[in-house]
Amino acid sequence: MSAAFGERARAGIAARGPLCVGIDPHESLLGSWGLPADAAGVREFGLRAVDAAADRVAFVKPQVSFFERFGSAGYAALEDVLAAARAAGILVIADAKRGDIGTTMDAYAAAWLTPGAPLEADALTVNPYLGVGALDGASALAREHGKGLFVLATTSNREAEGLQRSTDESGRTVAAGVIAEVSSRNARDVQGDAWGSAGFVIGATVDWSDAAISAFTPPAPILAPGFGAQGAQPADLRARFGAMSGCVIASESRSVLVAGPDRLASAVQARVEQYQEALHG
Amino acid sequence: MSAAFGERARAGIAARGPLCVGIDPHESLLGSWGLPADAAGVREFGLRAVDAAADRVAFVKPQVSFFERFGSAGYAALEDVLAAARAAGILVIADAKRGDIGTTMDAYAAAWLTPGAPLEADALTVNPYLGVGALDGASALAREHGKGLFVLATTSNREAEGLQRSTDESGRTVAAGVIAEVSSRNARDVQGDAWGSAGFVIGATVDWSDAAISAFTPPAPILAPGFGAQGAQPADLRARFGAMSGCVIASESRSVLVAGPDRLASAVQARVEQYQEALHG
Repeated sequence: MSAAFGERARAGIAARGPLCVGIDPHESLLGSWGLPADAAGVREFGLRAVDAAADRVAFVKPQVSFFERFGSAGYAALEDVLAAARAAGILVIADAKRGDIGTTMDAYAAAWLTPGAPLEADALTVNPYLGVGALDGASALAREHGKGLFVLATTSNREAEGLQRSTDESGRTVAAGVIAEVSSRNARDVQGDAWGSAGFVIGATVDWSDAAISAFTPPAPILAPGFGAQGAQPADLRARFGAMSGCVIASESRSVLVAGPDRLASAVQARVEQYQEALHG
Repeated sequence: MSAAFGERARAGIAARGPLCVGIDPHESLLGSWGLPADAAGVREFGLRAVDAAADRVAFVKPQVSFFERFGSAGYAALEDVLAAARAAGILVIADAKRGDIGTTMDAYAAAWLTPGAPLEADALTVNPYLGVGALDGASALAREHGKGLFVLATTSNREAEGLQRSTDESGRTVAAGVIAEVSSRNARDVQGDAWGSAGFVIGATVDWSDAAISAFTPPAPILAPGFGAQGAQPADLRARFGAMSGCVIASESRSVLVAGPDRLASAVQARVEQYQEALHG
């Protein structure tokens, strides 16, 4: 029986801070790293990113689309990257944003969260458009194996506002509803001060007041894209996340990846220290 | 330059009717077909389904999660199934429900909709939680190659109602907003009475009045899961979809797949004739 993902994420943040290295082998980055835009290129990119992340950060987040781009060969590359990261003791968040219903959703959860599966990760990002309840099977499978979910709540891209800020009959926004429904499920699953294993994706540059969301219990990990190249800085973390700051997993991709393969490790280390300074310095 | 997907879908419905054979190699179906629950099993299942669909229906819809379950080997199987279906002249709708933003979403579109890509399909189901505008890059890539999107609008599972029926400031539901925003983009892209190439997923058992959605222009293909085992029957199609009936692609999976590999072709043929009778008989 593995420890629950919520507690593993909490321990990871405590041990190495909030930084999560996004593994986004975008075509332009492959080019600047001197790697081919093919499955071999994304494999090498991913493995080098894992090497740089190992022993420095608690989390990596491979962006699945950049591997899927190359079909089964891209997935074979991703399998190698996932295995290397897990072997290095890094918690792997597969950023796939999967979302479906019933046994179809269960199959996605099985693909990413079953021990021994070729694509085994520690957690999976998921999409709640088909209802938070449609994720219950995935959540049960995750719990069984000490795995986690990150449910999309609110993102910082402008075109998402209309949908995510629509309101239900009680006046609650879509984003707030997602957080409330997932949190009520987390509350059933945890005891004491433990963290829930179903976390959230909340953009780092989202204004919580504008999005009509607020601090929640039980605590659960918050995967926050938008640090680094997209505008939020380590020094902003406390101000942006307030009472929930301690739950944040700050995802950075391009801001560290542009350092290139030879300087990536030192770029990651410098960034780890900036978060340490901002949070505890 | 390929013809636009909207017109290809329209021609497909005109030639062979609305039935779309869902290729869902669920573990229980693999068992009843006498196939192993592994990548070889889903490959064989998919190829036999394509054989049964060829020359009978215009559309097949592989459910990607059931292939993803087996990692890169499952994707290699899916590549064979997609290629066989396209070689047979069937329009292939990859049911992957992908959704992301920016270059990440573009990479999903490139994976499924680029001619010559290992996972090339004719259309891809996508999720609008991050905003319809976040799909614009995918839509542009689709148009360039005569490919299509099916945007999740409203589904028939109860747990989706709270989110999909939330309303924006103007009182428009999330589902209606998705249809309006996609339709306004289709209107920019088509001329005369042509169909848009960005279609919708609308559950067959959704009550349009309850969901606060209504007929839209320009016409665009409506992928309607929920026929067959999930409750809607061919005779219901006209009543359920009213003025939009002619745009419906009626997806059935288990209802035909349970016939087993040897009787699948005759089950598909019988079902094709039931739709023909219901719509034109």
